[in-house]
Amino acid sequence: MLYPSNIKKTYCKNTDHASRGMGLEAMINEANTYYLNNNKALIYKKPTPITISNVEYPNNKKVVTKGLFQTKSTLDYVGLYKGAYLDFDAKSTKNKTSFPLANIQNHQLQHIKRVIENKGISFLIIQVLDNYFLFRGEDLLSFIATNERKSIPINYIKEKGFEIKLSYNPVLNYLKVIDQIYFKEELK
Amino acid sequence: MLYPSNIKKTYCKNTDHASRGMGLEAMINEANTYYLNNNKALIYKKPTPITISNVEYPNNKKVVTKGLFQTKSTLDYVGLYKGAYLDFDAKSTKNKTSFPLANIQNHQLQHIKRVIENKGISFLIIQVLDNYFLFRGEDLLSFIATNERKSIPINYIKEKGFEIKLSYNPVLNYLKVIDQIYFKEELK
Repeated sequence: MLYPSNIKKTYCKNTDHASRGMGLEAMINEANTYYLNNNKALIYKKPTPITISNVEYPNNKKVVTKGLFQTKSTLDYVGLYKGAYLDFDAKSTKNKTSFPLANIQNHQLQHIKRVIENKGISFLIIQVLDNYFLFRGEDLLSFIATNERKSIPINYIKEKGFEIKLSYNPVLNYLKVIDQIYFKEELK
Repeated sequence: MLYPSNIKKTYCKNTDHASRGMGLEAMINEANTYYLNNNKALIYKKPTPITISNVEYPNNKKVVTKGLFQTKSTLDYVGLYKGAYLDFDAKSTKNKTSFPLANIQNHQLQHIKRVIENKGISFLIIQVLDNYFLFRGEDLLSFIATNERKSIPINYIKEKGFEIKLSYNPVLNYLKVIDQIYFKEELK
């Protein structure tokens, strides 16, 4: 499964707020469609990797009749913005005080490290109730390297992360925050 | 199917040559593994997008029992090298004089255009018998824009493209050519 099961519940709870009932994944997809249609960026969700072990051809259509889910070794989204390579994941928590690190698998951390080493931009978009934060991979790795804790305090995410204020068209305009962090010069 | 059916045949024919019997896809995978293990780049094959319409749980394992292949709308490989976003495809032809444009779908051309517009690097690795060329997306689009032809003459690919000479470890070291084209300054 790609997302924690609490997203659906958050989805129902959010209906009165600015996110207008959209789940985090739907918001990111909406933003990506907006960026694509407006030639701002090319960002997409990676397909779920499946090992195909049987294929049949009913009515001349190629159909997978046996496929095993592979362990996801990377993050969910990849893309290109102003020449930069973006690689990120979306995470949701209903916990008001801390974000459990069990949400992030070891090979995902390894992937974030590799993206940064190769000069790409890697981050998490973390939803904490009705607030959304862009949390840089560098800050995530540095927290893990210097702490024994099994969760990140939400206050740390608020302090180190960058809040993504909801707007409209797109609702979750996370590239605005990417501009603030990585393309400051261009904003002047 | 991701590759033209002639790859298998080429695979068998190549056994006496420098490629040591590897098909084009295997060569690219080998190079990508080498780059990953040596922290040179992070490049991977995109999973085949499959629409999952049925899932079962025999022995508590999640198994796809019905999945439809989606039309591939992008290229096969994506990655990150020295901060640059790479997006490319591998194509093979046994035709000695021309490369049929039918090998490239319209939405793939659209994708190449978008990558370039967003300042990424897009290209094809074209195998013509025992020769390998990196052919830039810009040159592909410009050929199509200025020609009515349904195929690209191999001589045009040789003239505009950059030959990837086979070596070893990795056999198809295509990033060497990327360096020559896009990172000239660093080579000095």
